[in-house]
Amino acid sequence: MTTHHFTPSHYHNTIGSHRPVLRIAPGDSVVTTTVDARGQDQSGLKVTPGPNPMTGPFFIEGAEPGDTLMVHLDRLTPNRAMGWGYPGLAPNVVEPGDVPALPKKATILWRIDTTAGTISLEEPVGGRLGRLTLPLKPMLGCFGVAPEIGQAISTATSGEYGGNMDYNGFIEGVTVYFPVFVPGALFFLGDGHALQGDGEMSGTGVETSFEVQFTVGLHKGVASGWPRGENATHIFTVGNSRPLDQAVQQASSEMLRWLQQGWNLTPEEANLLMGYTVEYDLGNMFDPAYTMVCKLAKKLLPGG
Amino acid sequence: MTTHHFTPSHYHNTIGSHRPVLRIAPGDSVVTTTVDARGQDQSGLKVTPGPNPMTGPFFIEGAEPGDTLMVHLDRLTPNRAMGWGYPGLAPNVVEPGDVPALPKKATILWRIDTTAGTISLEEPVGGRLGRLTLPLKPMLGCFGVAPEIGQAISTATSGEYGGNMDYNGFIEGVTVYFPVFVPGALFFLGDGHALQGDGEMSGTGVETSFEVQFTVGLHKGVASGWPRGENATHIFTVGNSRPLDQAVQQASSEMLRWLQQGWNLTPEEANLLMGYTVEYDLGNMFDPAYTMVCKLAKKLLPGG
Amino acid sequence: MTTHHFTPSHYHNTIGSHRPVLRIAPGDSVVTTTVDARGQDQSGLKVTPGPNPMTGPFFIEGAEPGDTLMVHLDRLTPNRAMGWGYPGLAPNVVEPGDVPALPKKATILWRIDTTAGTISLEEPVGGRLGRLTLPLKPMLGCFGVAPEIGQAISTATSGEYGGNMDYNGFIEGVTVYFPVFVPGALFFLGDGHALQGDGEMSGTGVETSFEVQFTVGLHKGVASGWPRGENATHIFTVGNSRPLDQAVQQASSEMLRWLQQGWNLTPEEANLLMGYTVEYDLGNMFDPAYTMVCKLAKKLLPGG
Amino acid sequence: MTTHHFTPSHYHNTIGSHRPVLRIAPGDSVVTTTVDARGQDQSGLKVTPGPNPMTGPFFIEGAEPGDTLMVHLDRLTPNRAMGWGYPGLAPNVVEPGDVPALPKKATILWRIDTTAGTISLEEPVGGRLGRLTLPLKPMLGCFGVAPEIGQAISTATSGEYGGNMDYNGFIEGVTVYFPVFVPGALFFLGDGHALQGDGEMSGTGVETSFEVQFTVGLHKGVASGWPRGENATHIFTVGNSRPLDQAVQQASSEMLRWLQQGWNLTPEEANLLMGYTVEYDLGNMFDPAYTMVCKLAKKLLPGG
Repeated sequence: MTTHHFTPSHYHNTIGSHRPVLRIAPGDSVVTTTVDARGQDQSGLKVTPGPNPMTGPFFIEGAEPGDTLMVHLDRLTPNRAMGWGYPGLAPNVVEPGDVPALPKKATILWRIDTTAGTISLEEPVGGRLGRLTLPLKPMLGCFGVAPEIGQAISTATSGEYGGNMDYNGFIEGVTVYFPVFVPGALFFLGDGHALQGDGEMSGTGVETSFEVQFTVGLHKGVASGWPRGENATHIFTVGNSRPLDQAVQQASSEMLRWLQQGWNLTPEEANLLMGYTVEYDLGNMFDPAYTMVCKLAKKLLPGG
Repeated sequence: MTTHHFTPSHYHNTIGSHRPVLRIAPGDSVVTTTVDARGQDQSGLKVTPGPNPMTGPFFIEGAEPGDTLMVHLDRLTPNRAMGWGYPGLAPNVVEPGDVPALPKKATILWRIDTTAGTISLEEPVGGRLGRLTLPLKPMLGCFGVAPEIGQAISTATSGEYGGNMDYNGFIEGVTVYFPVFVPGALFFLGDGHALQGDGEMSGTGVETSFEVQFTVGLHKGVASGWPRGENATHIFTVGNSRPLDQAVQQASSEMLRWLQQGWNLTPEEANLLMGYTVEYDLGNMFDPAYTMVCKLAKKLLPGG
Repeated sequence: MTTHHFTPSHYHNTIGSHRPVLRIAPGDSVVTTTVDARGQDQSGLKVTPGPNPMTGPFFIEGAEPGDTLMVHLDRLTPNRAMGWGYPGLAPNVVEPGDVPALPKKATILWRIDTTAGTISLEEPVGGRLGRLTLPLKPMLGCFGVAPEIGQAISTATSGEYGGNMDYNGFIEGVTVYFPVFVPGALFFLGDGHALQGDGEMSGTGVETSFEVQFTVGLHKGVASGWPRGENATHIFTVGNSRPLDQAVQQASSEMLRWLQQGWNLTPEEANLLMGYTVEYDLGNMFDPAYTMVCKLAKKLLPGG
Repeated sequence: MTTHHFTPSHYHNTIGSHRPVLRIAPGDSVVTTTVDARGQDQSGLKVTPGPNPMTGPFFIEGAEPGDTLMVHLDRLTPNRAMGWGYPGLAPNVVEPGDVPALPKKATILWRIDTTAGTISLEEPVGGRLGRLTLPLKPMLGCFGVAPEIGQAISTATSGEYGGNMDYNGFIEGVTVYFPVFVPGALFFLGDGHALQGDGEMSGTGVETSFEVQFTVGLHKGVASGWPRGENATHIFTVGNSRPLDQAVQQASSEMLRWLQQGWNLTPEEANLLMGYTVEYDLGNMFDPAYTMVCKLAKKLLPGG
């Protein structure tokens, strides 16, 4: 139950079977930092190229293909005051031809105030919104484990192994489960957002660098197919694909399997329960793979 | 400001320019009843064929193409104790080939207890779920106005005119806005659900008959493109299409227009606000057209 | 085996259970005319509003729900020299944000030369394309039968009943089969294109008015689910939906059914044959419902 | 202009920046072999694991990011008599719930007769199809170049770099163009099909091992975004994504760029030409990314 303090010296733009930066044991915690989506650190200096440079990978002792890795997000804290993002909706989230007449690559700056728990625009916009002060809600945009058969996949996208899911439910206090594909699992993390709307409709959250603490665990011999998670009130499963319909199908099938595997429901019971009580969140509708989340209230589970 | 009591003598399986059953004025309220999706009334008797028989249409005096009709859902009360639904997930919401081995057309019965505010299975299922008691949350599955150019469209589907949106946010206390396409608007309603999960993933809610009270209003000369709504905390817009991606695009474009039209935001302001604060709900992913809802917290609006 | 000559006096913008303009018997032929998508006749005069005004409906004696209507396209002849269309690709057929910087509603004119069998631009464009002379290939964009449960559906879209499929394989000599939903079938036709690229990617073909001759037949007690057809070399089935994936699924499922129904293949044989020999065409990717066509070479069929 | 004879000693299940097996110069040809999708060689022996083991990569001297690699498929010859495939349609190509009741992983065997130019079933199926003899039409299912930023991507899928496109137009005599992302381009090839239906609807072609000859060329400083190609009659572009709609958008946008880049058409001319003359083929609708091909007849091109 060691707490490791790890300072990254390099980053990865792909999630794959790269050389581990640290070996840790189930039960261990890690305190580390992440740079923002463009590779800027806590000083705002660009220290590595984008997209979404990853801290890690961390090798979890004893993790083998067919296990499930548990990652508890203990703490997610922006470690600088500057955040940035795109100013408007992305062309693919509005009706074709209804594209906002905005500079494509323009960036707006946000001021992050961790004491007040707010973010606000660095420069006020036109009269009606002012500096648009919003509540701080830090989340991890991109994290996951090395995928199967030696793949190394861009941190722009996502899949069964996690990756750039950009779901604003990945906040402090949440536990996430990943299928293990390679020995040691090889866990990566990065792409912190001080805040993100549903769907990451602008194509960014409020992008910033983080100090992060996480704790790992291992479910030996427990297989999973897609990322799973739980928070105080819900269990959830994640599908990453296009179109959104397929992401829903992936998340729903994974929930169906989890209910049978974890709570001994029969297929008929799992179907019935899901059919009337399931909830869905939109993770992102911007990245190469979109993300949908299937949720079930814990109080509805047997023993819940 | 009359309150009309209307008892339907016939129903419609299409939403179109049918002969009005009652003429009402803006500000008027109507107390009426709806039968369930299969045409069964408060006694459980089948009085008309499905799908989704509609009560109405109601002619709203003064409504003209280019106006927006306001409908406030004053009260939605199941008027019988029996509800029914499908027992499992629909084939299209799970991964292809991962189809539940359940009888396709089987029906399960639910007992609706409006005093206790619960629904529960008429017959307990296997050991782990028992009678699965859930909170009552009545909603309208299918309602809307006559579409353009003389169309009459099946109540199985939905579009700009509303229809079978099956969104569990259409509950008591919500105000809904529809574009007006024909003189009098011609408002239809039906398909009450005592409860429905996100996405109507089983292909039904808990289907039952309702007593309904609604109040209408008219925004003369205010055009809208898709259904809009508001509840205590949010304004929202609705897109109805396949795949879900397109329903998101329709709802998002409509929100972009509404923010400029209703709150005088510039295109840049509307884009920026939506890009970081918008929320999405999954209405249904079962009907011929899927439904996605784009929401914005009222407190974020100028003057909110 | 009568040949009727019918001159339309009015047109329909929906396909539905409208009053028949003529009663004909199986085996009969009809010679009639169609106006273009905007309602312009052989003189170029606008005689009725768009979209896609339909000639008909024709009542086929003896046709009952559950039968299949056969329509042979005997002759499709543009009856004027002027055709029109949109100048560029539609916004939804290119990558989002990659929208052509062209006037949205601009129209270009084409000259149709039925003697030479060509169409060419009325005004030459920039140096490299000149008048862009292309081979004449007349096709019907929108035709079909009244849909079920009293619906009347805009001629902008399509479904099981046919409609605005905009498939450039619907040319002279082709036989098309439609499911019958109402007594008399009620056949409509219109929206002639002197030429259309795959997918109707500009949003139009070369739109013009036609003289048409067609012959009807009836397969009593033979049910079909979606439009089917055959030409000299292939049988084919049509799916109309969004996204294209679903249109492929509809067309493929219909072909699977037809092979078992029409050629007594077992499910295993139909699956095997389709799995290695099926071909697909893109009908349209512009209308509210997209169209995909599943084809099988006749020589591969038993007895073929 | 050397012709290299290369015998592979190992294979790759990802397309990435792996160590080159041979360095060749623009203008050189290579004669080599490929194993089938499961790693079986010309003797039918499994020599390497699936999916789709790749021969290569070949380093092309002088190729740099921003160039375009040309690969001419000189000769594609099955080098054994045995082919295999799945017996029926895949669950995702028919309507949900309409899944063929066939063994999921069953394999059927085909006999390849290169002299007669036919393939036929090893064992006859039920009475009506017999041994189902079809014309031999060898094609490459999976080939491409190393993708950007050090990725290594499973040969099950495809992207801008090519990969598992499973398009039955990639036959002998065709020239294919790939964007170059890394020095030397790093060209891989494999997954030969003796025949494949449109869309690879069974999930396989007739899978077999090949002897292949190809010739490479290099277009220095000519950038491309997606695979391009040409055959005797057409130029074409390839999009790889889900849903099919997006693959169409990618292929169409790439064609729009190519027409301007390669034939000096203005955007207006390219739009107009494509809008009325473009054709589409369905590559595959089975792999993680689907493939659509946008084609234009060479005779329509300036100077064509």
